[in-house]
Amino acid sequence: MNAEIVSVGTELLLGTTVDTNAAFMGEILAECGLACTHRQTVGDNLERLTAALRLALSRADVVITIGGLGPTQDDLTRDGIAAALENPLVHDSQVEASIRATFEARGLRWVDSNARQAMRPECGEIIANAHGTAPGLVCRKGGKVVLALPGPPREFNPMASGGVKGILASLSGGQVIHSRILRVCGLGESRVEELTLDLMAGSNPSLAPYAKTMEVHLRLTAAAGSVEEAERLIEPLEKQVRERLGWHVYGLNEISLEAAVVHRMAEKGETLSVAESCTGGLLGARLTSVPGSSRVFTGGLIAYSKAIKHSELEVSPEVLREHTAVSEPVAIEMCLGSAKKFGSDWALSITGVAGPGPDDDGNPEGLVFIGLKGPESEMVARHQLGKGRENIRTRAAQLALTLLWQKLQ
Amino acid sequence: MNAEIVSVGTELLLGTTVDTNAAFMGEILAECGLACTHRQTVGDNLERLTAALRLALSRADVVITIGGLGPTQDDLTRDGIAAALENPLVHDSQVEASIRATFEARGLRWVDSNARQAMRPECGEIIANAHGTAPGLVCRKGGKVVLALPGPPREFNPMASGGVKGILASLSGGQVIHSRILRVCGLGESRVEELTLDLMAGSNPSLAPYAKTMEVHLRLTAAAGSVEEAERLIEPLEKQVRERLGWHVYGLNEISLEAAVVHRMAEKGETLSVAESCTGGLLGARLTSVPGSSRVFTGGLIAYSKAIKHSELEVSPEVLREHTAVSEPVAIEMCLGSAKKFGSDWALSITGVAGPGPDDDGNPEGLVFIGLKGPESEMVARHQLGKGRENIRTRAAQLALTLLWQKLQ
Repeated sequence: MNAEIVSVGTELLLGTTVDTNAAFMGEILAECGLACTHRQTVGDNLERLTAALRLALSRADVVITIGGLGPTQDDLTRDGIAAALENPLVHDSQVEASIRATFEARGLRWVDSNARQAMRPECGEIIANAHGTAPGLVCRKGGKVVLALPGPPREFNPMASGGVKGILASLSGGQVIHSRILRVCGLGESRVEELTLDLMAGSNPSLAPYAKTMEVHLRLTAAAGSVEEAERLIEPLEKQVRERLGWHVYGLNEISLEAAVVHRMAEKGETLSVAESCTGGLLGARLTSVPGSSRVFTGGLIAYSKAIKHSELEVSPEVLREHTAVSEPVAIEMCLGSAKKFGSDWALSITGVAGPGPDDDGNPEGLVFIGLKGPESEMVARHQLGKGRENIRTRAAQLALTLLWQKLQ
Repeated sequence: MNAEIVSVGTELLLGTTVDTNAAFMGEILAECGLACTHRQTVGDNLERLTAALRLALSRADVVITIGGLGPTQDDLTRDGIAAALENPLVHDSQVEASIRATFEARGLRWVDSNARQAMRPECGEIIANAHGTAPGLVCRKGGKVVLALPGPPREFNPMASGGVKGILASLSGGQVIHSRILRVCGLGESRVEELTLDLMAGSNPSLAPYAKTMEVHLRLTAAAGSVEEAERLIEPLEKQVRERLGWHVYGLNEISLEAAVVHRMAEKGETLSVAESCTGGLLGARLTSVPGSSRVFTGGLIAYSKAIKHSELEVSPEVLREHTAVSEPVAIEMCLGSAKKFGSDWALSITGVAGPGPDDDGNPEGLVFIGLKGPESEMVARHQLGKGRENIRTRAAQLALTLLWQKLQ
């Protein structure tokens, strides 16, 4: 059984939006055991969209459209599917009622164009959209299946990995390709490969590395008659990988490093605070993104200036003068000050130069110090993180979490 | 004159690689005034690749392939182009000599498969690759042009924006398609459309809305003989849109809302601090992502608990007891406390329930208060932001910046 993706949107052809949705859908199709042989991208043009859908239906059993389900004049996917399937569009009053309810609950003013989102091909069924007003569609006709998903990633992702994945798995008739992801911090991709090279020779289960921002994700995949059977194939391979990589494996599948840290601290009944300079709240934002983090996270200070580092974190003016704000002793005093202010067992501090260019004291762009106070001792790590404000800030926050994760073992 | 992109690679269909090259090429085509109406993606399969190229040649004047030019057995783009153009493959001894020279210069061992990279359709000319061994190709036959570029971005990007862009610009005979993006906050997509519906009827310049997370981006596009001429066509349309949408238009092209806020405050010589509860640093992180924000941003407090709200922001225990932490008076006291602590002219506060579920005081998930202290007065806004921790936090930070932006006018 094969599948084809049709991405819809002039912004994709113009290149202003990168089509991450299509890649994500490709991964899901592979996991569900459906071969994806073609992908097409068309703009917001009914004639070309309809022709693309007809071509896809001529060579694929399952056609997945992404985008073009919004309320405006150029959202044409519903019309295109109806035309390609030769099935009339009908108005679904239940869908309209549900959209109206969402508008009311959010206190938004109703605009009539939203009623467009309540149209569907007659053969279509609704796929609920928990994160937006445009529902997805599954249309079955003449032995073919067309699935339509909305384009905004925050609506697309949960629908793709939720309801749509379930439909695709049932279509593929029982053979599953199942994966687990082991998430690895503190090691580069080539080092991970070196440590696991012999294990990568296998095919069922297979092992493949994917480099992410300062992390490596190892995908362990097995094909089997059921998820349980695939899990049994994966288990011994996972054990070997974990033995080789030790504490660097911080979690499984969708868990983030910040979630691993928060959960571990919650288990231990310990608390954490942060004092951030160049990351400006990024570390706090990551930690508090974890549900239940309030049990662990006591507070944070964004200390952007020397004056605030002194007045709020008790960093001594002499140390600031002698060593500058971007230095080991300041990182140490910042994490000690944070632990004291927020009454936490642990505290992380970050002070560095995010750039562009060196700071007023001549410290180079990318120089970052990370301080960590634990229940028994404190330490500091020095890094040179290259160029680019976003790069430096992202890496600094990741390194701080990695250091804390290591020390929590 | 229109163009079509054919991306080649099984890894694209499997979703393990996101096709950023195709987006980049889409931008270049638009800049060169070539209309890109279709994109196809196929795997490393000669039959399907050849069919895709034939389809592309049937409807486009210029076909651009990306990927499949390497030395291995599954690099089939040269063969596919030769088949689709019905033009024999020939060996180019100059190209082989140049590849051999590169290998020697880098001290690499010659592998015979590299000679594949010296094959080209007879009608093809070489495009130099300064960052790899596989040259690009430009093939002209029967009034059609096929351009072939390598897939690795560090080889693709310089070739695309260098030699290939020059060829495309000369093909289009000087016609350019130029866009400006007006970025809009504080209005939904359907409301923006309602306010500008008549303006969207035009075709040169054209106006199209794109929904982003809590923002709308309006693309104004014109086709003309030069960028300057296109700008002159766009100018009166932009003026009309700005008149209709007022302060909601916060910026142009790549600027973010936080950058618009920081730049405006820097112009006015005013300063800002933040006190964040449920967003946990997200607002500070966005503000400090802007280069030069240290002139404006004095500091921030992540006050996750009632105790910290009291000890650090002077929120009175009576108010916390009587109104709970998620309330108007607490939001007001938080922004007043932040302005005092960090000595800023302005201060934003956010207190709310990010969930999952209600807080300990029974406040519902998604209830958020945003406090804003200005140089002359303070105010508070109440929002109900639906469900989902990430959704609520992202929206809360965006609403805080939107409120500040509005009050800065």
